[in-house]
Amino acid sequence: MKTHTIEFEVQHEDTDMQGAAFNPKYLFWFDTATNAFLKSVGLHYGQLLSQYHYAYPVTECGCQFINTMHYDRPVKVATSLTELKEHSFKLQHDIFSGDMLLGSGYEVRIWVRIDQPENNRRIVVVPIPEEMVLKLLEVSNSYQTGTYSEHDNLQD
Amino acid sequence: MKTHTIEFEVQHEDTDMQGAAFNPKYLFWFDTATNAFLKSVGLHYGQLLSQYHYAYPVTECGCQFINTMHYDRPVKVATSLTELKEHSFKLQHDIFSGDMLLGSGYEVRIWVRIDQPENNRRIVVVPIPEEMVLKLLEVSNSYQTGTYSEHDNLQD
Amino acid sequence: MKTHTIEFEVQHEDTDMQGAAFNPKYLFWFDTATNAFLKSVGLHYGQLLSQYHYAYPVTECGCQFINTMHYDRPVKVATSLTELKEHSFKLQHDIFSGDMLLGSGYEVRIWVRIDQPENNRRIVVVPIPEEMVLKLLEVSNSYQTGTYSEHDNLQD
Amino acid sequence: MKTHTIEFEVQHEDTDMQGAAFNPKYLFWFDTATNAFLKSVGLHYGQLLSQYHYAYPVTECGCQFINTMHYDRPVKVATSLTELKEHSFKLQHDIFSGDMLLGSGYEVRIWVRIDQPENNRRIVVVPIPEEMVLKLLEVSNSYQTGTYSEHDNLQD
Repeated sequence: MKTHTIEFEVQHEDTDMQGAAFNPKYLFWFDTATNAFLKSVGLHYGQLLSQYHYAYPVTECGCQFINTMHYDRPVKVATSLTELKEHSFKLQHDIFSGDMLLGSGYEVRIWVRIDQPENNRRIVVVPIPEEMVLKLLEVSNSYQTGTYSEHDNLQD
Repeated sequence: MKTHTIEFEVQHEDTDMQGAAFNPKYLFWFDTATNAFLKSVGLHYGQLLSQYHYAYPVTECGCQFINTMHYDRPVKVATSLTELKEHSFKLQHDIFSGDMLLGSGYEVRIWVRIDQPENNRRIVVVPIPEEMVLKLLEVSNSYQTGTYSEHDNLQD
Repeated sequence: MKTHTIEFEVQHEDTDMQGAAFNPKYLFWFDTATNAFLKSVGLHYGQLLSQYHYAYPVTECGCQFINTMHYDRPVKVATSLTELKEHSFKLQHDIFSGDMLLGSGYEVRIWVRIDQPENNRRIVVVPIPEEMVLKLLEVSNSYQTGTYSEHDNLQD
Repeated sequence: MKTHTIEFEVQHEDTDMQGAAFNPKYLFWFDTATNAFLKSVGLHYGQLLSQYHYAYPVTECGCQFINTMHYDRPVKVATSLTELKEHSFKLQHDIFSGDMLLGSGYEVRIWVRIDQPENNRRIVVVPIPEEMVLKLLEVSNSYQTGTYSEHDNLQD
């Protein structure tokens, strides 16, 4: 199972009046880490969206915040694909500064197509296309087929 | 059990290239909702921080994202205090646009004091002070005493 | 000349490690104020974008930051349309907290159409449509016709 | 005169519903670029703030937005110190993607000390300390002495 890592420093804009990184910003980092992970296996979010109108929005996330982090300190997010289903996938994210674990969390994301018939934006949950499943299978260690049901009602 | 509500509209700055509110922004809304909830029971985050060096950072959160929301649509976050412990508390947040549920989540927050001896910022988990517990008890329906252990190692 | 006002409070997410609102956030407030101003005269950014693919991006801005502002303090942005040209317009924004001036700035915005032929996003500067000019004329005190030239090269 | 450069990519969180980077975010990039510039000459924002309670907030900024930029495209901000006064300095920022100029702007920043006597945050404009002037002089090509007057009234 592949782990992909992004590295950066806490910026001034990430901090809050408590003097360290604003906790919910960790979820932004998850988002950046997921896009970088998928790009590393050949799935480019920008191209998927502009060419195929595909997107993979988060339907569920969770995070434990273990340590806060000061301005300018190095941050590393290690991401792996822990679950792959017909319409969704799950990623695990661990956030470190050096060896210190700052937080740990996950995202469940579904595969959708964003249609805009007559300028009426509509989101439809679709199976992850086969060629994309193949790319994801290489870096995942589980795959389940099945029918999507939980979010039939995804609207916008 | 009290439910406190904040209301606002999705702003341009909240949107992303998928054309609706950026999902992780919901966690920012939780933060705003929590501070407003506590203010409504007489606990003002800004005063707690500047006068007593108290803060109540998130140690755990989770969210289900059920529907996305367009620019300028009304959003309402309904918040209640579902758990009160000696060093921590838990809040439930439900996000609506009109009657449509956009997402639902929770935050666990611990009570800390931020010390800065010789400019060395240090975060110490402390019991929620008694007069603040009393204010929270009025709007909660559960309270547990006990010793804090999970996050003894909170550092910064 | 009409002045339109929005009001809100500084949120925790707006603050930085200096303990007050992060200055560049004032430019986000300008953006929100501009959209609210235009909505108040019947021009809804979301509809303009989804129905006509019109947008009015900022081509120039400037701001003086006079006072900073703490968490939870009330903020008011007063906006007026100071210039209306064939392809662009200029807005003046004054930011107050109570009677105290926090900052003062402006935005120049051009009228564009965002085309996506074959998924190739292209931005074209166009004249502000006549029915929209009429709405803007009611709240402006100057109008100049002329040919657009400065930003012929706007690309994406 | 030294030019310092930072490089990064447009992230998903930087985009808006128009499908490219949200313009006011450029001002956040200026902020990051300034801190990186000063760090490169030995002035570390985090240490200045925590050890000496010094900060250098923006009092004036301006920006021209020339081209917008898509998700994941490389961005480079080139920063130089164009003016150094007794209590303030001015930086020029040019934003590129490859050879394409995205925007160009400046910030004027003043040197302040943030005092918190009895938890009452107060900002005082002070001369830039001599050892810091020396570091800045090496990378600037102008220096003016004089008395600070413009922002005597900076409050918080």
